[in-house]
Amino acid sequence: MDQFRRPVRPLHPPIPALTAPGAGRRIYDLLRAQIADGTLAAGAKAPSTRALAADLGVSRTTVTAVYEQLAAEGFIATSVGRAARIASAPPAVPAVRQASARRGKPPLALSGFGHRVSGIAMPALSRAEPAAIDFAYGAVASHDFPAQAWRRAYQAELLRRQHSLYYAAPEGDASLRRALQGYLRRARGLACDAGQIVVVHGSQQGIDLCARLLLDPGDAFVFEDPGYLMARRCFEATGADLLAVPVDAQGLDTARLPPDDRARLAYVTPSHQFPLGGVLPVGRRLALLQWAQRHRAWIVEDDYDGEFRYGQRPIDALQSMDSDGRVIYAGTFSKALSPQLRIGYLVLPTALVAVFRQAKRLADRHAPLLEQRVLASLIDSGAYERHVRRVRRENERRRAALLDAVVRHLPDKAHVAGTAAGLHVVLWLPFLRARSEPALVAAALGKGVGVYPVSPLFATSAHRAQHKAAGLILGYASLTPEQIDRGMRALAGVIATMAVKGS
Amino acid sequence: MDQFRRPVRPLHPPIPALTAPGAGRRIYDLLRAQIADGTLAAGAKAPSTRALAADLGVSRTTVTAVYEQLAAEGFIATSVGRAARIASAPPAVPAVRQASARRGKPPLALSGFGHRVSGIAMPALSRAEPAAIDFAYGAVASHDFPAQAWRRAYQAELLRRQHSLYYAAPEGDASLRRALQGYLRRARGLACDAGQIVVVHGSQQGIDLCARLLLDPGDAFVFEDPGYLMARRCFEATGADLLAVPVDAQGLDTARLPPDDRARLAYVTPSHQFPLGGVLPVGRRLALLQWAQRHRAWIVEDDYDGEFRYGQRPIDALQSMDSDGRVIYAGTFSKALSPQLRIGYLVLPTALVAVFRQAKRLADRHAPLLEQRVLASLIDSGAYERHVRRVRRENERRRAALLDAVVRHLPDKAHVAGTAAGLHVVLWLPFLRARSEPALVAAALGKGVGVYPVSPLFATSAHRAQHKAAGLILGYASLTPEQIDRGMRALAGVIATMAVKGS
Repeated sequence: MDQFRRPVRPLHPPIPALTAPGAGRRIYDLLRAQIADGTLAAGAKAPSTRALAADLGVSRTTVTAVYEQLAAEGFIATSVGRAARIASAPPAVPAVRQASARRGKPPLALSGFGHRVSGIAMPALSRAEPAAIDFAYGAVASHDFPAQAWRRAYQAELLRRQHSLYYAAPEGDASLRRALQGYLRRARGLACDAGQIVVVHGSQQGIDLCARLLLDPGDAFVFEDPGYLMARRCFEATGADLLAVPVDAQGLDTARLPPDDRARLAYVTPSHQFPLGGVLPVGRRLALLQWAQRHRAWIVEDDYDGEFRYGQRPIDALQSMDSDGRVIYAGTFSKALSPQLRIGYLVLPTALVAVFRQAKRLADRHAPLLEQRVLASLIDSGAYERHVRRVRRENERRRAALLDAVVRHLPDKAHVAGTAAGLHVVLWLPFLRARSEPALVAAALGKGVGVYPVSPLFATSAHRAQHKAAGLILGYASLTPEQIDRGMRALAGVIATMAVKGS
Repeated sequence: MDQFRRPVRPLHPPIPALTAPGAGRRIYDLLRAQIADGTLAAGAKAPSTRALAADLGVSRTTVTAVYEQLAAEGFIATSVGRAARIASAPPAVPAVRQASARRGKPPLALSGFGHRVSGIAMPALSRAEPAAIDFAYGAVASHDFPAQAWRRAYQAELLRRQHSLYYAAPEGDASLRRALQGYLRRARGLACDAGQIVVVHGSQQGIDLCARLLLDPGDAFVFEDPGYLMARRCFEATGADLLAVPVDAQGLDTARLPPDDRARLAYVTPSHQFPLGGVLPVGRRLALLQWAQRHRAWIVEDDYDGEFRYGQRPIDALQSMDSDGRVIYAGTFSKALSPQLRIGYLVLPTALVAVFRQAKRLADRHAPLLEQRVLASLIDSGAYERHVRRVRRENERRRAALLDAVVRHLPDKAHVAGTAAGLHVVLWLPFLRARSEPALVAAALGKGVGVYPVSPLFATSAHRAQHKAAGLILGYASLTPEQIDRGMRALAGVIATMAVKGS
């Protein structure tokens, strides 16, 4: 249908000569325009196909096809053996619209959710001018992706002929859920049935499903302060109220959990608190589980970078201690493979499995099947865990380079937190106030270095005030050790200038 | 970490001899069990690493690593130059749990949405024993998928090195949105800016986003009766009320649209009504648009199989006539490529673009980037449209085989509807009553033929009662002409038997 191009304005009589390519479309447009402007009036006989074909110098077949199209669309009425007539359609058929006509702004009729989503301020996704050395948290190195292994597994799955292509299971393919079950037991100390796993479209969808299925407007949810903004926005968008609980060097301060039944849900990052990096100690883990049990609250455990713990075996997931079926575990392939893959998974308490499967089916039916099978085959062959170990070593080197660079370029001027695990650290700068973060970020960007302020991740100014210093989140998973050193040196220069100015 | 396997029950003293592989994990489990049962009491000195290593016959490095792990998790407290002590953690550390402990059923605390989703009855996804010849609607033939072209484009995109792997734009990659803009103009007469397009995770997600952003509990929505069940369930799950409007051979009966402002939204399939197959004539299209304008309602136009129209050029999308910014167009690659791909798109009125982008970002960040770029390159190279033309010819042959088979095997016993377009027809059987559909479906399955009853797609019995006959939905896109003929012959045998019995 490539040759069908609409003229910008409808054609009018006199009838132009038409050449064969695209003639059908032009005749169609011509007739629709003449019906629209009344040249061909409702109820009138349409020109005979023979006459029109002769007039226009095209074949009668072309004209007949156009008439059939117009009849199918209801513009003309045909019956066997009688001349076609212009349909008695409502008189004002809109002419082909200019793109600008679309710009009119009707007042928006949105749902409560729609209005809340409209009102949410979210950080810009990326800068117009990307930084030469970008410490963006969540980015991973392009060359860390196991492209060859992925390509081979993908090709094998692509060639595996299915009986027919039909919708797959909402909870995810059995092969991937089985593979994940084994992986989670080996890597995260998590004992579950494959039936408890639901494959989702990135952990973000897992969080969104929790928000939709567990929170109503007017409910309340516990959230780490500071915490992961994209999760907070999901929970806030339900219309539930935020109960911000402060975080210290060990993660969520469980002594500050609300003592009443207000909260329906708590969202936590116990393996490596986002962003401050604390590892939740066992005492607090138990306190949190007991609190959830006492108040019948759900716990969403976001294990966003649980694979990346240095020096020690990764700490077991909180869910491995949950004997009451309260913990929903959210895992992802975004950090170990790629955030662009959009595959994650939930491990659910048995009682929640049915409703999450059903909600996933309504939300988008299921995760792409081919990619699920590729992941399953990589896990089953051991290639995935070898890859994770390799990337962990890479990130261990990057982390060491970052810590070295801080010692070298910012001696006694900075305190690094959250280094035990993950793919980012927080750089606290005791000689700069919190309010100087925007200027610091802008000045660093001026030197080609992308850094991210910690303050926007706080929900309440009271909790931000407990940390006087300026803080920067530095993700290192997409950089080389050499880039990390250069970036820190440039950043140190900016910090020195600002400290002199007394910001 | 493969070697870390937990024993099913915690180990107790006397201390067993430990061999090197997996020793770390076993020592860890042993110490945790001893802390749990009080053998190692809170505040007591932990055994020295030297002594424990000697006792267990393992290296001191192994024991030190375990102690560091336990310290990181808060089970023991260490400080430089002093013996490690058991932490004053809450006394009852749960022992390693049996899988069965998870089966306890806490009373479910769900949101209103969660409760509604739990209560929804949805058709089973697939049968335990698939039919030999399955007229499942929505399935497409495995060999219709352009595996070679896809593989080549996929490989090229996989090798295209990105600066780093980071989250992409929620509205979809610019390359795919540009390609879609051109494709939609050429194929569907739809003039839009690429900025109006949001790439979604299958049209199901597009529908779900419409439901979430546009409907509140207590609102009402117009829905075709019979209609597409998976869309109806999405709208119902919001808590909005269904206004079922009957469908005839020309699609939605717009004369029966509610005359008041109750409805916030209408969901329609104007190109090929699902399931009855009518093509909405221009008069009704205008009536629907005018109704929406008058009552400030949104229209969701699901163009689920708009590419498949036989004999004539596909009818232009309803959105191409919308001058008021009320129509949301939903398209999909599920029919022309594969339902397992999970990529679709919305074309939005300009006023809705920002909120849909934001909601997509919260829902799952964005569609997988690689697949989007593969699609863009296939559209840009013309390969996609060549593929669509080829598959359209294939489906034209299948459709012809089905119509022939009905004439041959069910002369005067059946009426076929909805043949002008799409990938399915409805077979009305005037000699069988609606209530005999389940028996008919079961008997056909007994002969190895999968067919699907039309009655469950009706929302109200009043509208079902307007069609006395039994009806079957027959999808043909996954079958060969020969299978279609064999399937129809077997089905005709079943129908003959049942008609004799006078069902």
